[in-house]
Amino acid sequence: MKTKSESMKTDHPRAEESVRRCFAAIDEECGALTEELAALRRDLHRHPETAWAEYRTAALAAERLAACGFAVRMGAEACDPEACPRSFRADRDAEERRRAVEEGAPPGLVERMAGGLTAVWGDIVFGRGGPLTALRFDMDANAGLTECADARHAPAAGGFASRHEGRMHACAHDGHTAIGLGLARVLARLRDSCGDSLHGRVRLVFQPAEEEGEGAPGMVAAGAMRDVAALFALHIGMQGGPSGRLICGTRGFLATTNFQVTFDGRSAHAGTAPHQGRNALLAACTAVCQMQAIPRHGDGASRINVGELHARETPNIIPAHAWLRGETRGATSAIDAYMMDAVRRVVEGAALMHQCAAEVSVQSSCPGAMSSPELTALVEEAARSMNAFGEIVTEADFGASEDCSWFMNHVQEQGGEAVYMQLGADRPSGHHTATFTFDESVLPLGTALLARCVVLFLLRNSK
Amino acid sequence: MKTKSESMKTDHPRAEESVRRCFAAIDEECGALTEELAALRRDLHRHPETAWAEYRTAALAAERLAACGFAVRMGAEACDPEACPRSFRADRDAEERRRAVEEGAPPGLVERMAGGLTAVWGDIVFGRGGPLTALRFDMDANAGLTECADARHAPAAGGFASRHEGRMHACAHDGHTAIGLGLARVLARLRDSCGDSLHGRVRLVFQPAEEEGEGAPGMVAAGAMRDVAALFALHIGMQGGPSGRLICGTRGFLATTNFQVTFDGRSAHAGTAPHQGRNALLAACTAVCQMQAIPRHGDGASRINVGELHARETPNIIPAHAWLRGETRGATSAIDAYMMDAVRRVVEGAALMHQCAAEVSVQSSCPGAMSSPELTALVEEAARSMNAFGEIVTEADFGASEDCSWFMNHVQEQGGEAVYMQLGADRPSGHHTATFTFDESVLPLGTALLARCVVLFLLRNSK
Amino acid sequence: MKTKSESMKTDHPRAEESVRRCFAAIDEECGALTEELAALRRDLHRHPETAWAEYRTAALAAERLAACGFAVRMGAEACDPEACPRSFRADRDAEERRRAVEEGAPPGLVERMAGGLTAVWGDIVFGRGGPLTALRFDMDANAGLTECADARHAPAAGGFASRHEGRMHACAHDGHTAIGLGLARVLARLRDSCGDSLHGRVRLVFQPAEEEGEGAPGMVAAGAMRDVAALFALHIGMQGGPSGRLICGTRGFLATTNFQVTFDGRSAHAGTAPHQGRNALLAACTAVCQMQAIPRHGDGASRINVGELHARETPNIIPAHAWLRGETRGATSAIDAYMMDAVRRVVEGAALMHQCAAEVSVQSSCPGAMSSPELTALVEEAARSMNAFGEIVTEADFGASEDCSWFMNHVQEQGGEAVYMQLGADRPSGHHTATFTFDESVLPLGTALLARCVVLFLLRNSK
Amino acid sequence: MKTKSESMKTDHPRAEESVRRCFAAIDEECGALTEELAALRRDLHRHPETAWAEYRTAALAAERLAACGFAVRMGAEACDPEACPRSFRADRDAEERRRAVEEGAPPGLVERMAGGLTAVWGDIVFGRGGPLTALRFDMDANAGLTECADARHAPAAGGFASRHEGRMHACAHDGHTAIGLGLARVLARLRDSCGDSLHGRVRLVFQPAEEEGEGAPGMVAAGAMRDVAALFALHIGMQGGPSGRLICGTRGFLATTNFQVTFDGRSAHAGTAPHQGRNALLAACTAVCQMQAIPRHGDGASRINVGELHARETPNIIPAHAWLRGETRGATSAIDAYMMDAVRRVVEGAALMHQCAAEVSVQSSCPGAMSSPELTALVEEAARSMNAFGEIVTEADFGASEDCSWFMNHVQEQGGEAVYMQLGADRPSGHHTATFTFDESVLPLGTALLARCVVLFLLRNSK
Repeated sequence: MKTKSESMKTDHPRAEESVRRCFAAIDEECGALTEELAALRRDLHRHPETAWAEYRTAALAAERLAACGFAVRMGAEACDPEACPRSFRADRDAEERRRAVEEGAPPGLVERMAGGLTAVWGDIVFGRGGPLTALRFDMDANAGLTECADARHAPAAGGFASRHEGRMHACAHDGHTAIGLGLARVLARLRDSCGDSLHGRVRLVFQPAEEEGEGAPGMVAAGAMRDVAALFALHIGMQGGPSGRLICGTRGFLATTNFQVTFDGRSAHAGTAPHQGRNALLAACTAVCQMQAIPRHGDGASRINVGELHARETPNIIPAHAWLRGETRGATSAIDAYMMDAVRRVVEGAALMHQCAAEVSVQSSCPGAMSSPELTALVEEAARSMNAFGEIVTEADFGASEDCSWFMNHVQEQGGEAVYMQLGADRPSGHHTATFTFDESVLPLGTALLARCVVLFLLRNSK
Repeated sequence: MKTKSESMKTDHPRAEESVRRCFAAIDEECGALTEELAALRRDLHRHPETAWAEYRTAALAAERLAACGFAVRMGAEACDPEACPRSFRADRDAEERRRAVEEGAPPGLVERMAGGLTAVWGDIVFGRGGPLTALRFDMDANAGLTECADARHAPAAGGFASRHEGRMHACAHDGHTAIGLGLARVLARLRDSCGDSLHGRVRLVFQPAEEEGEGAPGMVAAGAMRDVAALFALHIGMQGGPSGRLICGTRGFLATTNFQVTFDGRSAHAGTAPHQGRNALLAACTAVCQMQAIPRHGDGASRINVGELHARETPNIIPAHAWLRGETRGATSAIDAYMMDAVRRVVEGAALMHQCAAEVSVQSSCPGAMSSPELTALVEEAARSMNAFGEIVTEADFGASEDCSWFMNHVQEQGGEAVYMQLGADRPSGHHTATFTFDESVLPLGTALLARCVVLFLLRNSK
Repeated sequence: MKTKSESMKTDHPRAEESVRRCFAAIDEECGALTEELAALRRDLHRHPETAWAEYRTAALAAERLAACGFAVRMGAEACDPEACPRSFRADRDAEERRRAVEEGAPPGLVERMAGGLTAVWGDIVFGRGGPLTALRFDMDANAGLTECADARHAPAAGGFASRHEGRMHACAHDGHTAIGLGLARVLARLRDSCGDSLHGRVRLVFQPAEEEGEGAPGMVAAGAMRDVAALFALHIGMQGGPSGRLICGTRGFLATTNFQVTFDGRSAHAGTAPHQGRNALLAACTAVCQMQAIPRHGDGASRINVGELHARETPNIIPAHAWLRGETRGATSAIDAYMMDAVRRVVEGAALMHQCAAEVSVQSSCPGAMSSPELTALVEEAARSMNAFGEIVTEADFGASEDCSWFMNHVQEQGGEAVYMQLGADRPSGHHTATFTFDESVLPLGTALLARCVVLFLLRNSK
Repeated sequence: MKTKSESMKTDHPRAEESVRRCFAAIDEECGALTEELAALRRDLHRHPETAWAEYRTAALAAERLAACGFAVRMGAEACDPEACPRSFRADRDAEERRRAVEEGAPPGLVERMAGGLTAVWGDIVFGRGGPLTALRFDMDANAGLTECADARHAPAAGGFASRHEGRMHACAHDGHTAIGLGLARVLARLRDSCGDSLHGRVRLVFQPAEEEGEGAPGMVAAGAMRDVAALFALHIGMQGGPSGRLICGTRGFLATTNFQVTFDGRSAHAGTAPHQGRNALLAACTAVCQMQAIPRHGDGASRINVGELHARETPNIIPAHAWLRGETRGATSAIDAYMMDAVRRVVEGAALMHQCAAEVSVQSSCPGAMSSPELTALVEEAARSMNAFGEIVTEADFGASEDCSWFMNHVQEQGGEAVYMQLGADRPSGHHTATFTFDESVLPLGTALLARCVVLFLLRNSK
């Protein structure tokens, strides 16, 4: 509603020449990386790892960061498992680590992360140092989704479809991680070739468990955002639209809460004594239908979804136990709280109707978030400098939730700035579907964009 | 509404002396068996085997029958797997057989039953032969029920609670099988000691998969009921009431159908595009609630239960798949069909509402059944001869379904008679509950009752 | 299950001659009444009167009783309005009385019943008096049902279809009342012509508001059943089957409860503030669906129906009020109570879910009932004496509820006997449907049957 | 997102002096009208008239317009009843007209509007004429809402609460009409005192049936918006906030559709034959619950509400008929269509489940709408000129629907401009609630604002 034109004229005093030289180095490096980025993404796509089991991916990140001269932090140093309830499956952890090693991860690195401590970050210093810039990439794949095997699906045709039933990179985190790995190399090159004009510190942050909304709080607690002056994050696709389009700053992250509900009733013989049963499945199904019917909120978007439900009895027994898992969202944390209040009321009412005991537990939650206007303007400047985008949108609403909001809020509360871009990419189907994939040509584009953002920020803050 | 008094006076000409002698032999043998019956039952209780995996139990039956001089039929000879859809899990079969062997079953016998062909029967001939009398025992345990571990639960206290989580003898089939094994010995003794006065053939039938309503049709197809003139079956507990009470003939078996439903929709991101989803879980929950609301039938009992339901998506994806399993019942096959018609309509309507595809498949079904009045009278005569029952009820309604109805109907359609007794037994809780168990003193009682029934029938038909 | 043959041989010492003479008088009188009975029924059918507005019908009964020499009781003498909550509409009472007068009822009689006191009974004494025999007839029509106007519907074709939209004799009470009026004449004739051999008192009871289950308690409180030794009641149709069939004694009256529920929430603008609303209609609809889903009872029939529901808001306001009315039934009063408990739980749960206040109020209830075996046998004897029935069934289950159960229970608790017959009658469609009507030839049959029952009872009790 | 600052500088060449003179006249006249405006509003508040029965209100408008020298159009000249389905109740029309006359409306005027043709408009010409400016006021009250009688409710305390149960001005249309009537006087004064500098035509439009979303199309068809260059409309309250706040231009009117559904099943006796029924009420309740559960739309606000539902059977009959009425809304017409598609699917599915026939009919619909930016800027200029507003918001989203969108779209499609203001007003509770009322001091404020808007527009277009 207010113009941003002033802030967009990034009239920081800096040598035009420095910029030109840095940008040329970026372009050259990104051009050279094109094939590697696609190969990296395909390798990650073929080996999807779900929340708290990103051993292979995180090890790859740690190796690359170290190779490029970053000071690496990982495992217990990078993640505080007490900071947030986690859906980490201790009983499967050994198996996941074994799998990661079988799939090529160095055993030593995997062991450092044992216990699902799959967060990694690396720091690099430019020139005489200075403010800390962070760039964040999420690594985890989607659980509960089996990739399409049809030959019309590019990963299947190209031989890089998921190896694992029920796990799939259907949200482009494979692409994000590839960009992050590419960026490590570009930054190393920049430091070497433009080190005289760039001063500051840069951190590449690789996050686990974004899909569960669980990864960020533990990294925040471990210090991943401490003293960060500028945080850049990027998502491929989403509202970004087709390849060649960019949303510079994302507003309106939905606040969200993940919850579980258990219903406990009483079993009984379904033929002779149905009246003696207390049907937990019926209570759960009633709750699912009624949650969906929670009145919409007049002040902004509200969402509800139950993704999982289980009850296991033979047909002739009234089921005494049912379990479900779902999420609420809201345009604001208040609306999300409104939805959760209603969820609790619905559960209580359904339990009462069917004489069951019920318990709602909150697994995780994300606040809402907004991109900082000044950093949004810097992204726009970087994007316009590239002549690579057909359409550049300053700001747009997100309509989704992102674990990144924890990072963004933390940085902004400290006085820093944060921005979340959406990088358009042609895709055959929506995120979180079995036929999701994306145009890989956006990988060098995204890498270059982030690198230019870093250059502009470093120059702006090191005059 | 009609008197049974004439038929109760079983005035078949026979030597009072023969009867007295046979009964004395039975009583002596059953007295001697008391401890063994309890031990057998406890051993079976500790090793519950679910439908089509009764390898250990069936092998025990085959061994005992052979040891007692019965001609044994088992495996493919005793069960036609094509006669009825089976819930047999081929993928778990090798593991089940391995388990059975580990738990003591002879490997050779287990192999003869490979493929879930766990039916067994054995024939014995008295005197000069004659009409065929069959006695049927069901062997399988309940799936999906974990036995109570509390010390107040007798099997837990006595150290014979189920070894297997999610499997439990909660319907007294362990007791039925123990009685059948005891009866084999009693009949062998009778043949030896009273062979001059008893003439005819007797078959002991051990049935798998009663809980799934799947075991009987394949045995009928394999000839288990061919030429059977009299079929006796018995259930411990049920409406039988406390120890010392007997229902001689059971009427009103409910007809029943087991069904499965799959719902297929379309996944979508629950935050950004809930309107693009086609929520299969919501369709399934709607169907569960609406099935429960199928109007009651005015002409007799109707039942519905959904025991199992699964949908597996992460909370941020609209679930595209859901699966459920349930059963209908009716006082008559027509009422059961009314319920299934309504189930199909509900599923179709729920799928339409939520834009999903849905498919209902019928897994198995049982017809209704009635005990034959003359055989009911014979049971009453046998019971009254024992002076062991505090209360003898001629007839009662069942209100439940039993795979046995296939056997009963088949025998009666051939011109034979069938009867289904309910043997009262003190129990702390209802059938199909985690704390079910029963007073073991009814085991020798039931064995003796069945033996006396055989004697009376053989005498009646061999004059 | 037990034979009734002994009790059926009504070997009370009495003159065969008396019986023959009385029966001949009955037959002659009923023959003469045939046309009048049909005309009476058609007149009543054309002028249906609903619960507590049976002014014209009751006045007709009172006139006829008086004309036949009965001592008549009516209005406040015959009905205690405090004995039971009534759905009587005081605000419409004056209009109903005006209507009744317009339709031919004597104003004086109507005024005596003002306030919906539309109960009537009349007593006649035979010989030297003696035990009191009562016969009960219900008078009210169905509310909320508009009679079919199609020419294929006999009352429409014959010009005697209901004059009133939303009111219809769809349960044969017109026929019952006609039989009661005919019987008054037959009894008067019997007293005159057979008075030397018949001794005792006979009461004809005309009941209002059976359809609401409200009429009987007020009459019981006013003494209608005081000292009644034998109560006979009759229903045309029901399970009676086709014309020529009779069920002598009805067992298994369902216990029933009529209830109302109000839901109060909060209105809000449906566009701008749906989240501020508390949707009472949604709560009510949830309750209706969930009531229908109350688990069936394993011990016998259970029933639930919501017949009426209202919410009145414009579409753009979240509705803050909803009201519904329904009934439960059970094979026993315990099962009916189980249903009402569940109704209350469902209402509470639905209100909780939708943040509404809710209140359940019970309007009326009927207990279960059973016909007395000895009186059933007497009915069977009377029926067999007539050679008019093709099929006579001693006993049958009812599956419905009847206000008459209050009368029956009261009589039986006092030591008297009660019986409820079902008189078969050909009908084109079920009771309580818009095309209901019945074969009028059963009217003289029913009249004669009841008269013979009275004769047999008087003779049996006046030896 | 874009600045409006250029357009806000309304630098049309005009004499500052003319403006000053006109504004002074307006201020003087509005000051003088203060008490009359409150009195008018209270009179209207006390006599609420619902859709198509606004006889008294429309007659008042017609009288006032004529008295002020406007050329008046009304009745069939102002409204084409065929242009849109109307909820007009012909059967109550005579009674409504009688009521209006009893409440003081001139019989002649009322008769001209007979048949629910309660639209009125009046034209006045300034100077040498020119472009047509229209101002629109809605007149109808809310149906189905009974005003609070508590003394804490100002209209009750002040003696001007609604005279009619179930009818209430709960959306400030009484205030709108009062402002329109006041404006007629102000414009007449302006024409007389400032006629030399103002040129153009002005139309005051009084609309019926806004609450039903039915009033506008018939007026559009009758020419109410033909050649309109600028349309001003105003709503008291809504998002306007407290007194002293103004939203100049409203964006984001929700598209909306009003619908009705009938369900037809089959009645049956609820005790003996529930399975023969086809429960229309159950189908309707299922549909209500499921409509509420239609997935939210990811692209913008979606709404659903069922405000009314009726089923009328006695408790012992399965209800064969049910009827309901509701509305959908959407941020765009596409989202509204998405909701209606889902409503149809839900109805079809519910009917299928319960074997009923169902029919959905659309009663009315409104498109979305947006205020024209230039006219929004003109309103802001007018508002800033007054020094009467504490807070002036250029634009805001509406979140509601308004019949006015028909007028706005029609004007804009012709090349004209339209603007919809929201005038803040202190209120104790939300619109459409029983305790709604508002601070009457906003009445002269709104009148003056609209008059200043007219002056600015006439000056801008008559240079």
